Amino acid sequence: MSDELKKGLRGVPVGESSMSYIDGDAGRLIYNGYDIADLAKNASFEEVLYLLWEGQLPTQEELDAFADSMASERAVEEETLETLRILAEEDENAMAALRSGVSTLSASEPEVDADPEDRGAARRKGRRITAKIPTILANYDRFRRGEEAIEPRENLSHAGNFLYMLTGEEPGDVAEETFDMALILHADHGFNASTFTTLVVSSTLADMYSAVTAGIGALSGPLHGGANQDVIEVLLELDESEMDPLEWVKAKTEAGERLPGWGHGVYNTKDPRANILQEKLEDLTAEDGETKWLDYTTTIEKYLTEEKGLPEKGIAPNVDFYSGSVYYKLGIPVDMYTPIFAMSRVSGWVGHILEYTEDNKLIRPRGRYIGPKDQKVTPIDQR
Amino acid sequence: MSDELKKGLRGVPVGESSMSYIDGDAGRLIYNGYDIADLAKNASFEEVLYLLWEGQLPTQEELDAFADSMASERAVEEETLETLRILAEEDENAMAALRSGVSTLSASEPEVDADPEDRGAARRKGRRITAKIPTILANYDRFRRGEEAIEPRENLSHAGNFLYMLTGEEPGDVAEETFDMALILHADHGFNASTFTTLVVSSTLADMYSAVTAGIGALSGPLHGGANQDVIEVLLELDESEMDPLEWVKAKTEAGERLPGWGHGVYNTKDPRANILQEKLEDLTAEDGETKWLDYTTTIEKYLTEEKGLPEKGIAPNVDFYSGSVYYKLGIPVDMYTPIFAMSRVSGWVGHILEYTEDNKLIRPRGRYIGPKDQKVTPIDQR
Repeated sequence: MSDELKKGLRGVPVGESSMSYIDGDAGRLIYNGYDIADLAKNASFEEVLYLLWEGQLPTQEELDAFADSMASERAVEEETLETLRILAEEDENAMAALRSGVSTLSASEPEVDADPEDRGAARRKGRRITAKIPTILANYDRFRRGEEAIEPRENLSHAGNFLYMLTGEEPGDVAEETFDMALILHADHGFNASTFTTLVVSSTLADMYSAVTAGIGALSGPLHGGANQDVIEVLLELDESEMDPLEWVKAKTEAGERLPGWGHGVYNTKDPRANILQEKLEDLTAEDGETKWLDYTTTIEKYLTEEKGLPEKGIAPNVDFYSGSVYYKLGIPVDMYTPIFAMSRVSGWVGHILEYTEDNKLIRPRGRYIGPKDQKVTPIDQR
Repeated sequence: MSDELKKGLRGVPVGESSMSYIDGDAGRLIYNGYDIADLAKNASFEEVLYLLWEGQLPTQEELDAFADSMASERAVEEETLETLRILAEEDENAMAALRSGVSTLSASEPEVDADPEDRGAARRKGRRITAKIPTILANYDRFRRGEEAIEPRENLSHAGNFLYMLTGEEPGDVAEETFDMALILHADHGFNASTFTTLVVSSTLADMYSAVTAGIGALSGPLHGGANQDVIEVLLELDESEMDPLEWVKAKTEAGERLPGWGHGVYNTKDPRANILQEKLEDLTAEDGETKWLDYTTTIEKYLTEEKGLPEKGIAPNVDFYSGSVYYKLGIPVDMYTPIFAMSRVSGWVGHILEYTEDNKLIRPRGRYIGPKDQKVTPIDQR
């Protein structure tokens, strides 16, 4: 066996999967055979969830049954809400609150004692967690604003119900459609760090709650999902400066600053998800008439592309470059951007867990030992 | 690059480490150069913690300062206790309660806003979590027994204080020493699944709370730590049967049953940790005069070794074979055996996180895509 050090495991295949395929050179992302642009335009988030978990798009009847079962699982127990209230009082970070909230859900899981290898139970647990994450997040945000808990509505879509719970008002069609699309675009992305985390945890036959809680922790890291609010923070800085956006981006790049939202570990071209969110930003802008966010992003992209030639160097807009402005226009608090990434990516986590554990193998690599081997403990008074 | 599938990553080196070395053929386990038998007999758990985190054994002065800082961090905030009370009322599994309890600790972390690359802050967070885990566990156990919270004592050792909080009484010397030794023996074991989980999470620059919470989840799996109570459950079954232990083990093996506590993924010989715990079981037995647990284990070991020749086939007693009887004699509830494994293994998690992130590289392997690539979404009414 090769003893070559595989730090980071970049490019090392650790499992087979039919869920997502990334072509970093062509800038394509495929879920179970379907291009995400096709899915974003012609399917709902619920259909994509079904696709990722069942391997095929549902019929209308299958979709109705699936969406109903998801909707009926949205409510969370008062016990979890109480923990969220405590955390809100302590001004806990939203991603950490989500991690704790999901962790406490297992206490009210009806199939908590199911055999770890009961695949039906694992599937239902994954569905329950996915259904409840929006309820946890929206209520956490409400508690820290001093508001009361809100009940989820079963007659709204997964996307629409979250926006309703967050704002207390039913969203308009463009807002709901845009958020639904954002959920689709973030749902899966190969064996990224958080997905791989959930696989390592699940490979011990630990349950879905342990795996998803772990995935949320991994996604919170700034090298993974934890920096997806950086773009909007920079755009807010530009907005407050009242500078001309072209002058501003020129000054930034001349000062040697690297703008967030550009470049990706896997894509060498413009992230296919960025193109779709850019279109939705245009739709939202046409609807509300507030043009500045679209103006800022397109001015920056044009300058970095045409004047600086970054895409030719493999540095192009990634999904975060447009998601920030989209979420901002939807009225989502900036520190909820990473949690809503989790709200979407849980689809991939659950799907990959179900897929990996179908033919499970404990994940246990090796550390190459570089320390000494024959020390003797000296009594402490002689050290 | 080789495209060979590395499912499970068995034998694949994913990082370098000076922390622990396992010689599965010789049955040796080394921490930072020291044989664990030497450490178990000649050092305390606090000294081993210092060794794993700092790379060398402390002087008396260093140990005093370190142990004091650990002891002063034992108390947990009322907010975490409240979550534990809620979970106890719901009769949550002890490992899941620990996962949720540790997750909520971040809300009262004084350095919560430290830069993710601030290594001093990471070290202090690791120390705080390690100091507080016994307080979480003991209080959780008290709450589910309907008892009040108990304050940790700063004038006891890490091991002694846990036994004190759990039982409400200061432990005797043999009990404290035995438990201290059990903590030493479980503290680190290479890049096992839970340790690797904490590395994947930390490689995103997520904080210690996310990483340790994830590690607890991984350790809970029955293929990792989650089955360490199986041995005592089998011994309790033997005890209730009132059968002669030799007749019982003969009947079991003749019925083709595999007894838990035998065989290990890494050791082909008797687990070096089992030898040490066997000695402590003898000490505890000499002290209390209750010989049956020692009798059961030695009878089973003798039969499976001398009559069945299992060790010659690479199947020998592992650490769990003796830890169960030892913990039982210490009065620890059976479902706390995996949580106390976590209480110990957090040493390794924190140490490996500090070591890995010193020269961090995001862990992101690849899934080999085996699905279709060119499907087109059919409108739902035509599916």
